[in-house]
Order: sequence, then structure tokens, then C-alpha cells
Amino acid sequence: MPIHNVCVFCGSSPGKSPVYIEAAKSLSELLVSKDIGIVYGGGSLGLMGAIATTAIEKGGRVIGIIPSAMASGMEKPGFSLPGETIIVKDMHSRKALMNEKSDAFIALPGGIGTFEEVLEAMTWSQLSIHTKPIVILNTNGFYEPLKGLIENAIQEGFFKEGNRGLAVFCNTVEEVLDALVSYQPPSARIPITWGKDGAI
Amino acid sequence: MPIHNVCVFCGSSPGKSPVYIEAAKSLSELLVSKDIGIVYGGGSLGLMGAIATTAIEKGGRVIGIIPSAMASGMEKPGFSLPGETIIVKDMHSRKALMNEKSDAFIALPGGIGTFEEVLEAMTWSQLSIHTKPIVILNTNGFYEPLKGLIENAIQEGFFKEGNRGLAVFCNTVEEVLDALVSYQPPSARIPITWGKDGAI
Ligand SMILES: [Mg+2]
Repeated sequence: MPIHNVCVFCGSSPGKSPVYIEAAKSLSELLVSKDIGIVYGGGSLGLMGAIATTAIEKGGRVIGIIPSAMASGMEKPGFSLPGETIIVKDMHSRKALMNEKSDAFIALPGGIGTFEEVLEAMTWSQLSIHTKPIVILNTNGFYEPLKGLIENAIQEGFFKEGNRGLAVFCNTVEEVLDALVSYQPPSARIPITWGKDGAI
Repeated sequence: MPIHNVCVFCGSSPGKSPVYIEAAKSLSELLVSKDIGIVYGGGSLGLMGAIATTAIEKGGRVIGIIPSAMASGMEKPGFSLPGETIIVKDMHSRKALMNEKSDAFIALPGGIGTFEEVLEAMTWSQLSIHTKPIVILNTNGFYEPLKGLIENAIQEGFFKEGNRGLAVFCNTVEEVLDALVSYQPPSARIPITWGKDGAI
């Protein structure tokens, strides 16, 4: 499946080290250079803002999807809504639409919201809701504990070893594009037939 | 807030060690003994099945909430839908209704679906969608890597230290009930005003 748009999950904080913002900007530039549009959670904060504003500066396509209650918090000095913004009613509508508009998922470092977003994308793939590539940018080794969580779940019998490749971990921005292109949905996904209206 | 019903997230696998099933059964008995109803993802598999069937044996209240595409997979020998079952259309409807019907969340060991469920409950609390207790049963040290993921996010500036208490980790089933009762929503939650229709 050709990748026209990727959904990017990442922190609304910038992180304490400049390497996180640098990675976000670098990924954003690379996506624009490949004519890949960016779908993200909207707003100008932290890594999310860096991804969006960098892409717009470089002439890229950016769609931010944000619940109305959070968008109204962006209507003050120092906040903005870069790119095309789609206002939705709630957090689930946001994630459903982000999925609908994307051909792949990339997670950068972030907080618990980012963790749940990428784990939900993985869960949906595991349940055969989609087969899209999921790539995790492990800048600064940030995601080593998530690798540990997944490996422990395999070890203890709660996650199938054959699904280890649901998400591909990359250490550099350059690896991310290769991972998106070469991605293969893993073998141990659960075959469930979802109706048109009943996927997410 | 009195706790009438708790939402339990856990694996649809039993885990390799018997300690996981034992913990699930033990928690289930304890909840029934306190007249606390159980809301879970439905079905008879793994820890999920152990929680539900134990509670029913002990005379407890059990509601399983499951998407139709997954429920139809339960209509074969060896599978069942214990308790009252509510069929929903998709994964988001399931989680929204599980939240709606519960006064607190408990996570037991599980796979990526369990991880995303408890992290979403934490994310919703962080965003002031709810103030419900969230307790993680760390049987066999299963959730040590999740602690590590959260601590690293604090260290690197992506999660507020003042929100560390969003989820309380417990080592034993007995601690879980105390944690539910003594839970205090942490101080660094983000004050967002959600409309009636726009929470999840
Ligand atoms: Mg989720």
C-alpha cells in the first residue's frame, strides 16, 4: 500500500533534551521531502507543534485533529493550530479520524497519551482492524522500557512472539522511512472479520 | 465516590505461570465479597474468563462488553460469554461503555490491548475527563517495565511528576482494595472543561 499520509503520535511537551525536538523536526522534513502528508493531534505544543510547524515551513501537508474542548484552550497567546485543523467532539473521534486519514503510524517520544495511541494502533492491527505499518522512533533510547514491557509480555505468555513485529523500533529518523516501506504485517494477528461500521 | 462497579482490564491469555490465574480469581472473589460489580471486555478466555466465571460462581455481578465481530467468534465449542453481555459495534464503543458503567479501573497482567486500555484510562484522567481510581496489579512484577516507561517519561520531561499517582501500582490483591478506597486524583492533571457530549 503506498503511503500518502502518516499519523504521527508524539508528546505535547518538548522533552528535556534538545535531541527530541531535533528528531521531530528532522522526521518532519524527511516526510515532506517524500511528499508524505502528516496527520497529528493538532496544536502547537511540544513535539507535536515542532512536527507541524516544520512541515508547514517546508511546504508539506498537515492535518491536525483535535477535540473542541482542547481546541478552545488553544485560543490564547502562545498557542496556535498549525495546518488544516479538524475539530472533533471527543478523544475517540480524534483517534478514529486520525486512523481513517492515514496509511501508517509513527510514534515519537511522548507521555502516556502517546503510549496509549501507539498501543491502540498495535491492538487494532493485532485484531485485524488494519494492516498499516507502525514504527516507533526510539530517540535517545526513550522506548527501551516499552520494548521491555512487550518482551516481558511475550515471555509471560500474554503476547504472541509471532506478533513482535507489529511495531518496528528504529533508532534514527533515516531508518523510519525504510521501516515504513519494508513493513510486513506479522503472522500471528487474530483473524476477525469486522463489518464496515464496526472496526474502531 | 463510592465504588459500586469496577472496570477490569486483563489478558485474554492465561499467562504461563499459574500465579496470574490465581491472582485473577482471588481479586474476583474479593470484589464479590465487597459487593463490587465487575465490568470487563466479555468472553471466557484467559484472565478475562477467570475473573468473570469466578465472580459468577460466587454470586457476583458481571457485565461483559464486547464488539459484535468478536462476540460471534465466541459462538463455538470451548468459548462462552459469561455474565450479562452487552454487544457493541466497535472497540471504541466498548471502552467508552466500560468507562461509563464503572467507578474505578483495575488492570491485571495482559498484552498490548490491556496496556492501551489502562493507559487510555490514565490519559482520560490526565485530561480531566474523569477522576476515577486507576489501580495496576503488579503480579509477579509483571508491570515493572511499565513503571520504568512512566519514570523515564518523567525524567525526560514528557510526563509530569505530579501526575505519577494517576495509576497506583499494587503488589497484592489485598492492596488493591485499599488503593481503590484511598485513591486521590493527582494534582497535575490538566484542567479541561468537557461538554456533556464530548468527553471520550
Ligand atoms: Mg486507547
